[in-house]
Amino acid sequence: MLPERIASVAMTRVTREASAEDTDVLAVEEPLEIRVAWEAGGEPREKNIAVTMRTPGDDADLASGFLFTEALIHAHDEVESIRHWGSPNVIRLSLRHGAQLDVSKLDRHFYTTSSCGVCGKTSIDALRIANTPMPATDRFAGEIIHRLPAMLQEQQTMFRATGGIHGAAVFDRDGKLMRAREDIGRHNAVDKAIGSLFREGATPLSDTILMVSSRASFELVQKAIVAGIPLLASVGAPSSLAVDLAREFNLTLLGFVRDSRFNVYAGEVG
Amino acid sequence: MLPERIASVAMTRVTREASAEDTDVLAVEEPLEIRVAWEAGGEPREKNIAVTMRTPGDDADLASGFLFTEALIHAHDEVESIRHWGSPNVIRLSLRHGAQLDVSKLDRHFYTTSSCGVCGKTSIDALRIANTPMPATDRFAGEIIHRLPAMLQEQQTMFRATGGIHGAAVFDRDGKLMRAREDIGRHNAVDKAIGSLFREGATPLSDTILMVSSRASFELVQKAIVAGIPLLASVGAPSSLAVDLAREFNLTLLGFVRDSRFNVYAGEVG
Repeated sequence: MLPERIASVAMTRVTREASAEDTDVLAVEEPLEIRVAWEAGGEPREKNIAVTMRTPGDDADLASGFLFTEALIHAHDEVESIRHWGSPNVIRLSLRHGAQLDVSKLDRHFYTTSSCGVCGKTSIDALRIANTPMPATDRFAGEIIHRLPAMLQEQQTMFRATGGIHGAAVFDRDGKLMRAREDIGRHNAVDKAIGSLFREGATPLSDTILMVSSRASFELVQKAIVAGIPLLASVGAPSSLAVDLAREFNLTLLGFVRDSRFNVYAGEVG
Repeated sequence: MLPERIASVAMTRVTREASAEDTDVLAVEEPLEIRVAWEAGGEPREKNIAVTMRTPGDDADLASGFLFTEALIHAHDEVESIRHWGSPNVIRLSLRHGAQLDVSKLDRHFYTTSSCGVCGKTSIDALRIANTPMPATDRFAGEIIHRLPAMLQEQQTMFRATGGIHGAAVFDRDGKLMRAREDIGRHNAVDKAIGSLFREGATPLSDTILMVSSRASFELVQKAIVAGIPLLASVGAPSSLAVDLAREFNLTLLGFVRDSRFNVYAGEVG
C-alpha cells in the first residue's frame, strides 16, 4: 500500500486570547529513491540516481519526469518498466535493450546538495546516533512568539525589494534579534543565519528561537536540532516528517506563525 | 568584487486593461561551490562538498553554516581560514591542523538531487550544447494567461487541505488543462506533471504553457526548456538567472501571475 499523501496530526491552535486542542491536516513528506537499471555492453548495470523528499503518489510520473527534464532519458519508449522496488519509497526504472544512461553526464550534471538532505528512516537513524534529544528548556512565552513575524519582516529588506526571497532569523528567549539573513534558497537563509553565529563561537544555540519565512521541512528541523536550537517557528506549514522528527528530538515546532496566531505541532509554549 | 544581491531588469507589466514597459528588481541567483581543504595523515586533501544555488553575499556564513548544520564540522575553531577562491562563486574553507572531515559521512549523508541543478556558467554551457533555443511560436493570448491562476488553484486539492504544498499544471494554447500535479517540493510537482505527459509520449510539449504555484528559479526554466515548453508562468517571482536563461533560450517567462495581472520578463505575450 502506498503511503498517504496527507496526514492528520494533533496540535494546539493559539491566538492572543485563547488556545485550543485540535487536529490539522499536513502534507506528507517522505524520501523517494530513484534507481535506474540498464544494459551496457551486455552487462547489467544499476544505479541510484537521486533521492528526493517528495509527497507520495504519482511516483512513476515523478521519476520519469525527473530523468526526462534532467535530459538523462529522451523518449518514453526508452523505459521498459517502472515500479516500486522492495519499498514504497524506492522506484526503479528499467531501460529497454539498447537504451543507454549517460553516466558521465550524471557525474557532470549532478551535485551533492543540502536541498534533499539526509533521507527518511536512514537519516533519522543517523541523527539518532549523532544527536540526543534536545535537553528540556523552560517553555517559551506565547507573547514573544506573536511578536516574531513583524520582527522578521523588518529584517527582510531584499524581500521587500523583490518579493522573491526567503528570510531566517535567530532570536533569544526574550525575542531579541541575534542574527537575520536572506537568500533565494530557504535552506541557505537558515545556514547563513546559523553560520554567522557559529563563526563567532556562539553554538550550540541553546535557549534561542529560529524563525523562518518559509514552510518547515524535515531538513530545517534537522538543521535546528544539530545547531541546538530548541524552538523552530515557521510562517508556513510544517510537513508530516518535520513534526515526527521534532517530537522525537524534543524540538518545539510552530507553524503558520502570523497574524497574531500560531499552531503548536510539537512541544509546548506559553 | 562580489556579485550583486539584487538586479534590475526590463520587463512589461500587464493588466486586463493595459500593458506598460517598466523595470523590476529581482533576487540574484548564482551557484556557490563549497570546497574544503584539510590534512589527513600528513597528506593534503581537498574536496568539492556541495554546489548550491544562492543569492550572493554572506558566503562565508553560508558555507560555515552548511558544514555545521550538516554535522561535517562541529566548532568554529576547526576552521582556519575561509575565503573566495579564484571566483566569487567558489568559497574554500581550510581546516586547522588536526581537524578532520569525515568523508565517509559525506558519502552516506549526501545524495545527488535535482534541487541544486546544473550550475551557473557551466550548466548554461551544457544546456547550450544539449539544446537549441526554442523555436519561434505564435504569441500566447493575455486573456488566456489571466485565467490560469484560478484553473491551477482548482486543481490544488492538497493545498486547500494543508496550505503547504506546491502545484504545477500544463495547459494547451487555448488554456485547456492537460495535466496537474502537487508535491511538497516545487521541482517534484513540475517533474510529476511533465513526467505524466512524457509517459504518454506527448513530449516535446510544444505550444503548451507550464504554470507553477511557486517562484520561477533557474532550474524550473531549465526543465521547461528540456521539455520543449515555450511559456513558463509562475505565481511568484523569477530569479535573475531564470530571466537570463529564458531570454537566451527564447522561452517566454511570466512572473507574479495572479489577481488579473502578470509581468513579462522574457518573450512577448498578447
